[in-house]
Amino acid sequence: MRRFLPLLLLAFAFPALAQTAPVPPPGNPASEIDSFNNHLAAATRAMDNSATLALWADEGISLLPSTDPIVGKPALAAFFNNVTSSIPGAHMEKFELQCHDLQLSGDLATEWCTEHQIVAIPNKPSFDCRGKMLLVLRRSPAGQWLLTRKMWNPA
Amino acid sequence: MRRFLPLLLLAFAFPALAQTAPVPPPGNPASEIDSFNNHLAAATRAMDNSATLALWADEGISLLPSTDPIVGKPALAAFFNNVTSSIPGAHMEKFELQCHDLQLSGDLATEWCTEHQIVAIPNKPSFDCRGKMLLVLRRSPAGQWLLTRKMWNPA
Repeated sequence: MRRFLPLLLLAFAFPALAQTAPVPPPGNPASEIDSFNNHLAAATRAMDNSATLALWADEGISLLPSTDPIVGKPALAAFFNNVTSSIPGAHMEKFELQCHDLQLSGDLATEWCTEHQIVAIPNKPSFDCRGKMLLVLRRSPAGQWLLTRKMWNPA
Repeated sequence: MRRFLPLLLLAFAFPALAQTAPVPPPGNPASEIDSFNNHLAAATRAMDNSATLALWADEGISLLPSTDPIVGKPALAAFFNNVTSSIPGAHMEKFELQCHDLQLSGDLATEWCTEHQIVAIPNKPSFDCRGKMLLVLRRSPAGQWLLTRKMWNPA
């Protein structure tokens, strides 16, 4: 189960289908990224795969423990599909996300976050997991902040 | 030993004493960061604590598995001291670092790396560890690229 942790986390953070990313209203980058974080938390909480994948840049790379780097949206989507298909009927009972210490320069930004998730899986004990994440966001030409790098490890 | 992995890694990547960071010769940011990576690898290979700490920004944050975030150079130095004092006589037999997919914007840059280290510890088996890292670098007003965020997990 310990090795499964990052897969499960990914499952609820990397959707399977394409969807339009939210375009932030005109504002300062810090508030735009706060809005991004809210979208990320909501998509994860709802286990809305397409909404979550839409938050990734095409070149996005996810770095999970004891797992090869997952490079690009097609690979993220495939990985996600593999994970969710392994836990049919699962749903997120709780997902909390707090992000800290935003740094910005031009079209790159970075923040680190803590997360706590409780996932109900039919006929199994709930999956209760706390982790840390280092996120790097890149602003697209259209003005959307998108995930370009993400690493996770246990809190 | 598994829980000790990140501590050991940190030990050889975060020195205890202040030292002047290398100022890159005028060049393009990609070659400057290539130079930074060479300095990081050399300092780690030599277990040169002061040289490694010099590669960190004052506000640097290290995110290790199952460990609270380590925030700022004094905390990094203290953490490093704690680790090295626990393994007297250890030396690095091998350290390899490969970094990939540099992204740059203004004074921020990000890359992800793989590392392989073999550490000889007196009266114990060698410590052989492979990991991945997500690095975020910030260029100082003096033109030095410095580590501002680092996360590690096992390869």
